[in-house]
Amino acid sequence: MSKDNKKNSDQTSKVPTSTSDEAIIRFKKLQQKNVSVDTLFNAIISKDTTALSKGITLIESTQQNHFLKAQQLIEKCLPYANKSIRIGITGVPGVGKSTFIEALGNLLIRKGKKVAVLAVDPSSTVSHGSILGDKTRMESLVRSKEAFIRPSPSGNSLGGVAQKTRESIILCEAAGYDIIIIETVGVGQSETAVHSMVDFFLLLKLAGAGDELQGIKRGIIEMADAIVINKADGDNQKRAREAKNQFRKALHLYPLAENNWSPEVLTCSALENKGIEDIWKLIQKYVDITSKNGFFDENRRKQNKFWLLQTIEEQLKSSFYNNPNVKNQLKTKIEAVQKHEITPFAAARYLLELSKKS
Amino acid sequence: MSKDNKKNSDQTSKVPTSTSDEAIIRFKKLQQKNVSVDTLFNAIISKDTTALSKGITLIESTQQNHFLKAQQLIEKCLPYANKSIRIGITGVPGVGKSTFIEALGNLLIRKGKKVAVLAVDPSSTVSHGSILGDKTRMESLVRSKEAFIRPSPSGNSLGGVAQKTRESIILCEAAGYDIIIIETVGVGQSETAVHSMVDFFLLLKLAGAGDELQGIKRGIIEMADAIVINKADGDNQKRAREAKNQFRKALHLYPLAENNWSPEVLTCSALENKGIEDIWKLIQKYVDITSKNGFFDENRRKQNKFWLLQTIEEQLKSSFYNNPNVKNQLKTKIEAVQKHEITPFAAARYLLELSKKS
Repeated sequence: MSKDNKKNSDQTSKVPTSTSDEAIIRFKKLQQKNVSVDTLFNAIISKDTTALSKGITLIESTQQNHFLKAQQLIEKCLPYANKSIRIGITGVPGVGKSTFIEALGNLLIRKGKKVAVLAVDPSSTVSHGSILGDKTRMESLVRSKEAFIRPSPSGNSLGGVAQKTRESIILCEAAGYDIIIIETVGVGQSETAVHSMVDFFLLLKLAGAGDELQGIKRGIIEMADAIVINKADGDNQKRAREAKNQFRKALHLYPLAENNWSPEVLTCSALENKGIEDIWKLIQKYVDITSKNGFFDENRRKQNKFWLLQTIEEQLKSSFYNNPNVKNQLKTKIEAVQKHEITPFAAARYLLELSKKS
Repeated sequence: MSKDNKKNSDQTSKVPTSTSDEAIIRFKKLQQKNVSVDTLFNAIISKDTTALSKGITLIESTQQNHFLKAQQLIEKCLPYANKSIRIGITGVPGVGKSTFIEALGNLLIRKGKKVAVLAVDPSSTVSHGSILGDKTRMESLVRSKEAFIRPSPSGNSLGGVAQKTRESIILCEAAGYDIIIIETVGVGQSETAVHSMVDFFLLLKLAGAGDELQGIKRGIIEMADAIVINKADGDNQKRAREAKNQFRKALHLYPLAENNWSPEVLTCSALENKGIEDIWKLIQKYVDITSKNGFFDENRRKQNKFWLLQTIEEQLKSSFYNNPNVKNQLKTKIEAVQKHEITPFAAARYLLELSKKS
């Protein structure tokens, strides 16, 4: 796609391909309690999924020494990353995301691709997430050697969860996955977070009661590169076609996004495996057009810059709001401005002064 | 409208009404070079426009001693504020904002209201702004004793400009203005800033070439409580009606805002003074509904909280990005993440550490 990517491909080809002897030695090393970063790295770029899993576990760990190892590992993997197509998929619970991802994943594997599925779900608990947690929902994909499925990392803040997923993408790409699918159930701002880490953003919908756009969260439509009406099967086909037309009309009314791509609306039945091929063709068309006009690479560069500034700003806010003096006074000051007793600007100055005192 | 407002009204009534003797003494005091905060404050709540102008000049000043005086003045005015209806008006250059504001302002004055017109235009230069700068465009409004017109404060950052305008609203309200109109030409994020300081947000449009929603900045439609198609006069009337219908259809497709108000579309000719009364009726209807369902007051409380947090966060960012060590390294690190040489998260950590060293 880009010069960078070509360079990366060349580097990959210098890595010796795995032989069974090497694989056995690597396997033994990976079983040790304190696997070194080098061991993990070499195994990951040799496409070892155990190593990839261990690497992502390091990224997700809250232990300080794990954190440092994870950062070293990511830095090492970075030159081998960035060669995939990253697809974001969102949709409310019940829309059939798992079935859809399984159908799309299986199609891609039949076409010779390696598929990694990650998730961003800030509502997931320590038990490792509500989405993708129940792997039985993607039975055939789980069994495939060419697929790697990982539930959402746990965490309290969307920023933290999204950062872990974004770092995991780098490891998956270094491990040779061509297609990275990022799923989100759309809690809070999670669609925005996923949108800013993928190349193509797909909104999965069901045909509803006629007034399709009511109830869609603000801003989601503007982010979508495609809207796919799922469960277009049986009695539902007519309604799905109607929904498709309504979305097409609505999309036409929205201003074009900066990539000059007109979002398309398709129907599919993930359950009956119908329409999946067309969706993949659409994604390929998008990648083709945006690679040629430069948006694909430009977008990734923008996303990197966005994440840099975003991380800095989240960190600044987190330090401020966790300052004990600020914590102590924030609620009182918010109440005072809400009662019009003090201006927001005077309250802000007061709290900023407080934060410097500790 | 609310208990708070009633309380404020009671307080206002305790202030002695101005007599001509008092006015003369006040006038003399205001002519002095170093007017005290108390003098300014008393004159402002006695509805003296010279004092109001001087007060806003203090707010806009960049001198440190002016800043402190301005803050004291705002704090004193705050209990007398919050009794107006704040109307935001946006539209691209050429849409007829000045003519529209003049028509609406004159109507309101005929109805016994006092009208203040402020502006947010971060692109305006030191010469005091492109919008409202040319007061001859609102000739009759400028001449009215019941109108107060002030161009956009100058400044480099939208945050700074918007803060000054927001503080000026408090002074205008304390000076007894019932209707505060905030105009913006819509540079950068200025609509968002204006939207978050007004009760009612009006998007002014022209009938176009048929495809009305193309070219509207993303997110503006969602903010509008009303869309008004201006210049619906002469040969233009048919096109204006068609544009109205297209916008109505489009708005119907958007999800309802949290105030449960369905934005309405109207046409008008500000030049021929047609349709202005209907727009004012619509605004009154909005104020009536949202006052009854509590949204009006709730929205102002939310806006105050928003401005508190916004000011804090802008200040945190500004300190960070103006740190000399950070300034020195930021560009290099942005380039490195864009070239995929370092992850955004590692770069952010590096810069955050740097900022702590000075």
